[in-house]
This record gives sequence, C-alpha cells and structure tokens, in this order.
Amino acid sequence: MLTSVQNPLVKQLRKLHRAKERREQQVFLLEGTHLLEEACATQADLVVVCCTPTWQETHPQLWEQVSQQATRSELVSEEVLAAIATTVNPDGVVATVRRNRPVPIGYDLSLSIALDRLQDPGNLGTIIRTAAAAGTEGLWLTEDSVDLDHPKVLRATAGQWFRLPMTVTSNLKADLQAFQRQGVQIVATLPTARLTYWELDLTVPSLILLGNEGAGLTADLAEFADVAVQIPLAPGVESLNVAISAALILYEARRQRELTRD
Amino acid sequence: MLTSVQNPLVKQLRKLHRAKERREQQVFLLEGTHLLEEACATQADLVVVCCTPTWQETHPQLWEQVSQQATRSELVSEEVLAAIATTVNPDGVVATVRRNRPVPIGYDLSLSIALDRLQDPGNLGTIIRTAAAAGTEGLWLTEDSVDLDHPKVLRATAGQWFRLPMTVTSNLKADLQAFQRQGVQIVATLPTARLTYWELDLTVPSLILLGNEGAGLTADLAEFADVAVQIPLAPGVESLNVAISAALILYEARRQRELTRD
Repeated sequence: MLTSVQNPLVKQLRKLHRAKERREQQVFLLEGTHLLEEACATQADLVVVCCTPTWQETHPQLWEQVSQQATRSELVSEEVLAAIATTVNPDGVVATVRRNRPVPIGYDLSLSIALDRLQDPGNLGTIIRTAAAAGTEGLWLTEDSVDLDHPKVLRATAGQWFRLPMTVTSNLKADLQAFQRQGVQIVATLPTARLTYWELDLTVPSLILLGNEGAGLTADLAEFADVAVQIPLAPGVESLNVAISAALILYEARRQRELTRD
Repeated sequence: MLTSVQNPLVKQLRKLHRAKERREQQVFLLEGTHLLEEACATQADLVVVCCTPTWQETHPQLWEQVSQQATRSELVSEEVLAAIATTVNPDGVVATVRRNRPVPIGYDLSLSIALDRLQDPGNLGTIIRTAAAAGTEGLWLTEDSVDLDHPKVLRATAGQWFRLPMTVTSNLKADLQAFQRQGVQIVATLPTARLTYWELDLTVPSLILLGNEGAGLTADLAEFADVAVQIPLAPGVESLNVAISAALILYEARRQRELTRD
C-alpha cells in the first residue's frame, strides 16, 4: 500500500490538478465511484486506479473490474487519496484516464451545440449532462474555454462526459461553415432577437450556438448564425445562466421533435 | 479607514460567513458591485457598507447612494476587505443587509415553486434566478435546505434574490394543503411519472414541487401532488440537475401561457 505523498506515482497524479500537466501527460483525473462506474461502462481507457482499503472492501466487484481494465492499480492510504483528490471529501477512489473521449463524426448532425469561450466548469459540466439527456449528438467547445478535462467539469456531468461526443476547436467559424454546408441551421441565442425560441422550427437539423457567461456571443460569431432567438425574461431580469439557456432550447427541440413524430 | 482585521466591526462581519451567526444577527453578507446595485434598486435594508478607496473612486455615484441608505459606511483597506469577503477575488465592496426579503403573500398564486431539502447553494441560486425570469410569483424552501442567505446562493441569483418573494417553511405539507385549498394544482417531478411535462396543462395555477439533488422527492411529499410529470432522458442518462429540471417546467408553463394569451 502506498502511504507516502512523496511517492513518485502520487506526485505525478497530483500534478494532474493543473490543465497544463493534463495536456502534457495526455491523461486526466477521475474522482469518485460514480464517474468510475461510468468510465467502465463506456470502456474508457483507464491508466491508473488508486483506492483506499475501505473502498476496496466495500466495492469488491468494481475493484476487480477496474483492476483488469487499468494498466496499474494501487491501494493507497486515506491520507494519500486525499492528497491526490481535488474534492474535500473524496469517496475513496481516484483514477487516471487517457484523453481519447468520443468525438463527433462529421457535421451532418440532427442536434448539436457549440460553446464559445465558456469559463465556468460547473456550467460546462451541466451543459454536457443536459445535452446528453436531450439527445444531442455532439458538442463543440472553443479552445479558449475552460478545460474540458477539469475535475469540476467531470463532476458536474454526472458521468455523461463519457457518452457525449465532444471536440475542442481552434476555429469555430470553420466548423460553423462546415455545418452550414451540410444544411444544418445555426441558431444563435441573442437577447435582442425578434423570435422567441419556441417560435422557431427546431425539428430541422440544428446547431445551438452559445457564448461566454458574461459577454455572450461575439458579434463576429453571431453573424454566422442563420437565425437568432431570445428567451423571454420577466421585467428587471437581465439574463439567465448559460446552462439554463442551453437546456431550454435543446429541450424545446426535443419537445417539437417528439410531437411531430406522433 | 479601517486597516486592522482585529477591528470589532471587521470581526463581526467575518462571523457572517456562518449560517448560525446570520440567524443570530438577523443580517447577511452581500458581496460585489452587482448585488449591491440590485439591493439599492429594490430598497433592501442596508446596514453596513465597506469598500476600498479604489472602489470608492471608481463608483462615486453608487457610493453616495449606499452611504445614504446604509446605517454605517466605512472605507477599509484591501486586506480588510479580503478578510470580510468569502470570494477569492472580491471586487472592492461588501455590505450587510437585514433579513427582511419580500415574502409571498398568500397561496393564491398563478405560478410558484417549492423545494424540499435542497442542498447545493449554486443550484438554489440558479433556481431563484430562473424562477424570477420565468415570472414565478413565489418560492417555498424547507428549513432543512441550504441557507437562503448563503453567500453562494446570493451570487448565483445574479441579483434576483431581492426580487423574488421567498419563504423558508417548517411545514411544507401544510403549505401544500393551503395551495390546494386555493385550487392550485401541485405538480411533482418524478422519473416514474407517466406524463411528460409538456403534456400537462400548465396554464392553470400551478406549484412546481422539486426534491433533494440526490434523493429526489420523498414518497410522503409526492403523495400530496395532484399530478406527476417526468422529463424525458436519452438512454443511459439517469437524471438532470435540479435547477435544469426547474427551468424546463417553469418555462414550459410560460410558453403555454404566452400561446394561450395570443
């Protein structure tokens, strides 16, 4: 059992708290039983798994499964586990996963979402979780956004991180043009739009385009959109949280599609 | 200018980081320019306002206004402000506000929401913000939930904390019965419900009832509901974030109501 926080493996895992190290090592940190179960269920590429003796005793089946899937599995002391984890009360298991998540295949998608300069990991994680639930087929994220492998992003996705095809893009405009060539309507969310989101036909292939939490969409990107919609707000309310905006439009698409299917 | 973190006022303000002290002093902490503007705009009961010289210089009008509204206003050093604030990078101003927020008047409401044992301050704040935006008239929160005056709740509401009538209840069942006597339909959100949320008539007076993040609604409370609805989820997705669920149902009510108004 590893009991020293000075152990080379432990030191290497702790470095993964930083985005730069995650990029260099090409792995990221996964924390907690639920995310580990989802990683196993989706055949994610586990590298190292560390757990406490107590966790091993209480999760014998999952431990056996992850020990077989991972390159290396180690028992660690409570103290070492706490040092590796980014949460205050880790639940006894952490792992590293290679960065080869599912990516969207092409632009010919029925429902997808693109996020420009999103900053908050909780917002991004919640959008991933909601997008997966609404049946979204792919997510695009600009590279100047919060790191997709941030531990708080993973946590907020409640496991959907491993299921939704996602890609980080260095040129969102080029991606938007590729969507348009496939006949996908690009829907911008703008407070000044004339059309309310439920007035738009979302049964046709659509990409929902959302911008930064504070600044919203840049004029530059908004110009690329085929249509803009707004979400009505009561007097005195300035805006909604970006994850809420994403949810409302994605689920409106789902509602319209289920009604036309009947 | 106050420069010592040992100053009695500073010590008293720092105590407000704890829910128990907020209850005892009957005031809570408000942080940052945006929340302060909203507090002023809604005639909230400001007690103490503290800002740094830099903030005072850059916000002369707001400073004059809050100095007049507050019982006491003090210039403090950057160090003292950082000690009072709960955020890592405070923007130069904090204040205390007396706990007399707007409360719902009666149960004869067109659209309202009740939350049982909500635990996450970010979720509660986001629900408050969204509920206000959707035109909700009142929010009920059980007393075993996260503290309504938690600094993170205030932050996540983006100022709507001061606009939405809210109440903390020790007996939600009695409140639900009072709603029912007024002819308000109580809508529970349950994953096992037969009806999808957009299939329900939400143009009639409705209370949306949501439960704890992990455990959902208790069977006991769910029994009180007149109708239960579910939000459809793609295969492999277990659940949505509670703030997302709240938003989808409240905005579906808004959508239906705007369509019938036409």
